[in-house]
Amino acid sequence: MEVKRYALAVEYDGHAFNGWQIQPDVATVQGEMERAVGRMAGHSLRVHAAGRTDAGVHATRQIVHFDTAANRPITAWVRGVNSFLPDGVSVLWAKQVPSDFHSRFVATARHYRYLLLQHPIRPSLWAGKVGWIHNQLDLNAIKFASQYLLGEHDFSSFRAAECQALSPVKKMLKIEIGQQGDLIYFDFSATAFLHHMVRNMMGALLHIGKGNESAEWMAWLIEQRNRSVAPPTFMPDGLYLTGVSYPEQYALPTEPEYRFGLI
Amino acid sequence: MEVKRYALAVEYDGHAFNGWQIQPDVATVQGEMERAVGRMAGHSLRVHAAGRTDAGVHATRQIVHFDTAANRPITAWVRGVNSFLPDGVSVLWAKQVPSDFHSRFVATARHYRYLLLQHPIRPSLWAGKVGWIHNQLDLNAIKFASQYLLGEHDFSSFRAAECQALSPVKKMLKIEIGQQGDLIYFDFSATAFLHHMVRNMMGALLHIGKGNESAEWMAWLIEQRNRSVAPPTFMPDGLYLTGVSYPEQYALPTEPEYRFGLI
Repeated sequence: MEVKRYALAVEYDGHAFNGWQIQPDVATVQGEMERAVGRMAGHSLRVHAAGRTDAGVHATRQIVHFDTAANRPITAWVRGVNSFLPDGVSVLWAKQVPSDFHSRFVATARHYRYLLLQHPIRPSLWAGKVGWIHNQLDLNAIKFASQYLLGEHDFSSFRAAECQALSPVKKMLKIEIGQQGDLIYFDFSATAFLHHMVRNMMGALLHIGKGNESAEWMAWLIEQRNRSVAPPTFMPDGLYLTGVSYPEQYALPTEPEYRFGLI
Repeated sequence: MEVKRYALAVEYDGHAFNGWQIQPDVATVQGEMERAVGRMAGHSLRVHAAGRTDAGVHATRQIVHFDTAANRPITAWVRGVNSFLPDGVSVLWAKQVPSDFHSRFVATARHYRYLLLQHPIRPSLWAGKVGWIHNQLDLNAIKFASQYLLGEHDFSSFRAAECQALSPVKKMLKIEIGQQGDLIYFDFSATAFLHHMVRNMMGALLHIGKGNESAEWMAWLIEQRNRSVAPPTFMPDGLYLTGVSYPEQYALPTEPEYRFGLI
């Protein structure tokens, strides 16, 4: 029996689950995926993800993989699995990949978008889908400050205490910040992210945007390599994992995916 | 004590409530509004809406009004009321209006948008926020068919059995249909809508879009004035009340509101 490896793109509503990682007695994306894929495969199996997103964090294109000896048409891993999944999660596509592919270990970049509503009134229709700040923000200061985060840094000032990464050194490849109506989007691409890193960078950027510190203060903050001097972690609600990049040889899409305009 | 009348614009997530209209023992938008506004006013009161949306139908700008003798700064009816409302509903603005204003009876037009995802995979991140169809649609046929709905008609073919409107004759002022990526939006403006009218028109338009009938069949369907010959009511998930128009003298915004691009 030949064991095959499949990569899947998965979309989910972070509020429907207690994060990616499987836990006893609570609904998690990994738990639901292993149940649904396992049911289609006819055996229990492990599903690995590129990024282990926290509770409340959404994904427009999480990449996962699993191994199976089951012979199924490729649509079984999309429509078949979707029929076993709850409303808040769906498989977008499936592709057989070589056995040296690993959704997490061979990824070259992760892409996240933070969607922030800047408005006096809290969101209700989009509650949970956007972060919210009622203050008027200095977007130029935020953009300027964000440039200090580019390149290779020790990101300890933005690292959660529970972070299990081997090293706090990561390379920020791209940051793009823009506005559409009352919504501000923040795009972050990095080789990898530490635990809570995007939400902690958001906390620092908004601290600057509110005028509490100058844009240049970001350079000082990075230098400290000390979480305790940094502003608090910002809410998860507007955070989306939008894509994962892999080496060309795997022929998987490497650009972020937005099915609905800004998301 | 002078009794004053206030108009409020309200946004809500239709899935958080059992429709607009107050009912015992279930959460409804009217129930929550009357509780929150009443708490701010210091007395119980009735809150009237321009459109009594069904369960699952959202609003980006529902218009409501109420009467009170309480003296409160205008922000009390926005921020104060919002602090008493649950997550899924919020007041966007408040304005004092003359005593002859009535959110429902003096409205000259209602505006609805239906957001439809046309894709082989069901939505998960936006489950409940968009309608979904996996078929490829003939958008030109749909646009052509929609033109028959314009103008004054007896809309009995699109009227739910429970509809309490005095007359099935309404005037369709505008229909606009467009596409953005995998999303198709359908904008309907009419003097008033019958119960389930937009969802029933959607059912007929999609029936044509799937190639079951020609675009011209819509003219026949309208002619029948008979709900039993029409295709089924389409799902509520992608339906948004986006605005209400009033005579100029009340100085209220009359164009639909979209805070987030397509919504």
